[in-house]
Amino acid sequence: MPERIKRSPDYEPELRKNVVTREWVIIAKGRGRRPADYALQVEGNPLPEHDPSCPFCQGGEANTPPEVYALRDGSPRDTPGWRVRVVPNKFAALRLGGSNARHDDGIFACRDGFGAHEVIVETPSHHLDLWEMEDAQVAAVLDAFRQRYLAYETALALPYVLIFRNHGPRAGTSLIHPHSQLIALPVMPLQIQMEMRGCSDYWEYLGRCVYCALIAQESAGGERTVMESEHFLVVTAFAGRYPFETWVLPKRHAIRFADISEDEVADLASVLKTTLGKIAGGLGRPSHNFVIHSAPVDTHTTGGFHWHLEIFPRLTTPGGFELGTSVYINVADPEDAAAFLREAEVPAAVATAGGI
Amino acid sequence: MPERIKRSPDYEPELRKNVVTREWVIIAKGRGRRPADYALQVEGNPLPEHDPSCPFCQGGEANTPPEVYALRDGSPRDTPGWRVRVVPNKFAALRLGGSNARHDDGIFACRDGFGAHEVIVETPSHHLDLWEMEDAQVAAVLDAFRQRYLAYETALALPYVLIFRNHGPRAGTSLIHPHSQLIALPVMPLQIQMEMRGCSDYWEYLGRCVYCALIAQESAGGERTVMESEHFLVVTAFAGRYPFETWVLPKRHAIRFADISEDEVADLASVLKTTLGKIAGGLGRPSHNFVIHSAPVDTHTTGGFHWHLEIFPRLTTPGGFELGTSVYINVADPEDAAAFLREAEVPAAVATAGGI
Repeated sequence: MPERIKRSPDYEPELRKNVVTREWVIIAKGRGRRPADYALQVEGNPLPEHDPSCPFCQGGEANTPPEVYALRDGSPRDTPGWRVRVVPNKFAALRLGGSNARHDDGIFACRDGFGAHEVIVETPSHHLDLWEMEDAQVAAVLDAFRQRYLAYETALALPYVLIFRNHGPRAGTSLIHPHSQLIALPVMPLQIQMEMRGCSDYWEYLGRCVYCALIAQESAGGERTVMESEHFLVVTAFAGRYPFETWVLPKRHAIRFADISEDEVADLASVLKTTLGKIAGGLGRPSHNFVIHSAPVDTHTTGGFHWHLEIFPRLTTPGGFELGTSVYINVADPEDAAAFLREAEVPAAVATAGGI
Repeated sequence: MPERIKRSPDYEPELRKNVVTREWVIIAKGRGRRPADYALQVEGNPLPEHDPSCPFCQGGEANTPPEVYALRDGSPRDTPGWRVRVVPNKFAALRLGGSNARHDDGIFACRDGFGAHEVIVETPSHHLDLWEMEDAQVAAVLDAFRQRYLAYETALALPYVLIFRNHGPRAGTSLIHPHSQLIALPVMPLQIQMEMRGCSDYWEYLGRCVYCALIAQESAGGERTVMESEHFLVVTAFAGRYPFETWVLPKRHAIRFADISEDEVADLASVLKTTLGKIAGGLGRPSHNFVIHSAPVDTHTTGGFHWHLEIFPRLTTPGGFELGTSVYINVADPEDAAAFLREAEVPAAVATAGGI
């Protein structure tokens, strides 16, 4: 640990502040295990490459709502022959059909669940995780993300669009087939409001983007760096809420994901594969989420945001303390976690066990 | 459902705003199951009443740090003979020993993990959940809460004290022996800041406590009422983040838990037992958390807060959407959940299975 962060020897816990959202986090390393102790035992039977009962496998197209986007080689809509396929979520949390009316009740504010909820099916292969796919396939998934962002950003009817991924039962999904999701909201989420405020306040004070400042400091220091490529810096979060919380930060300042260039897509595909592969290899294929943070649709100020991707391996369960305070207890030291992930190896071959 | 909340028939999801914190929640009833479908299958072997390896059982006193409070009938400290016992957490997230210094690092704010973390052992009986104990025992636990709040509020060195309970593996604990926890923080948590702002803004606008207004409306409407006693109203939260999220609200306006009267302690013991018992009976003894929200230590304005207790059965797992937005998708309609809990019966006898 560098000299500039000093800690009393037998006194491990530490409070750290998220420089963007201003939330405090408790890093309680003393409570926990060494990084390698988080590795899970992989259980379960090998997954089949194709599951005829899965609505996201080729041949299951009739069991999803009609597709809104697909990467195809000429085959007709809603038939096999695609590489990436996007469909409305059959069990949508928000829906585009229907009204956008309010139904307040005394002191309570309430409105119809107007919005969009889509599933991005990342590959026809039932058994692969994202890091096990070919680089070009991951790039195709990222390009689908970009296309769907653009579709909603052009429409402008919904102020915020989130793309996220839940993989494995501890990450809040029961569907094995690799997929991500998009939700477009009619209201501005608190987390995004906090990030926007953090960005714009820092910009006002110092005339600089807070994420650019963070990238410069992390790149120079290196103690939380997991890897670095031409266009991206991957670090464990200084004030991460979850053990091994890892951020993928684009070095070029851009407020929204859809501004990503073709070169950056190719680079991000490789970086994301390696990072998720290191997490899978080092930690035993844990459940994980990732979330793309991008500017709200009608943000136009240069300093208003800096898009990035946040990865959350799901190794611990938040309890009443987190529910009551929004302060998270993270039992893995971010510097230890980064050192561990730098050394972790991406498993060699295709998954043979359902270790999600 | 009352006339004043109208919904289009085939259009189930709904956005609701937490009137205090102003957070949006998605109530996505259409995605989910009927309330009874949440009931878990109880698994596991019967728990013993006494486990000689458990540090919280009688006889294990030497395996915890020295007690800071106990309800005893004359026996010496740190020996058997107690009914409720409070000890510092051996694996504390924050510690009173050591320094309270800052260690900022460039743009990152960081400080030593100064604070307190205690365990309230609720009973010598290893096998009981809180709702299975005698009323007088639960009242003794609540009185221990009050005493510990008072101990920290008198000291005034730490601005916020939280008492919470994690029960069961999905609630973030691995210890079976019934216990609650106290954490005293050197910083003000975001969740509490939001609640304080919600209370004081409402007070400024309308000259009234927002929780008092909520209690008046909920008591008159009744559609989210689970039960009501002389001093407390129990409702499912209008904009609950979790399925079956249930709030226990004191009818008398008081900003902090430690202001509770002896009568109210006795009433709360009975109300809390019944509410947790209904959740256990109706939903198959799910893991749960509860959290006491009380005013920060140096709050003195009448309208600054209204203490209450929030219960979270842990039936679903938040995913990337929640991590990226702080907007929760709650798949159980709060009105349906209240109707279900009103009818749910408290199981008759002492637990015989480790269904946590």
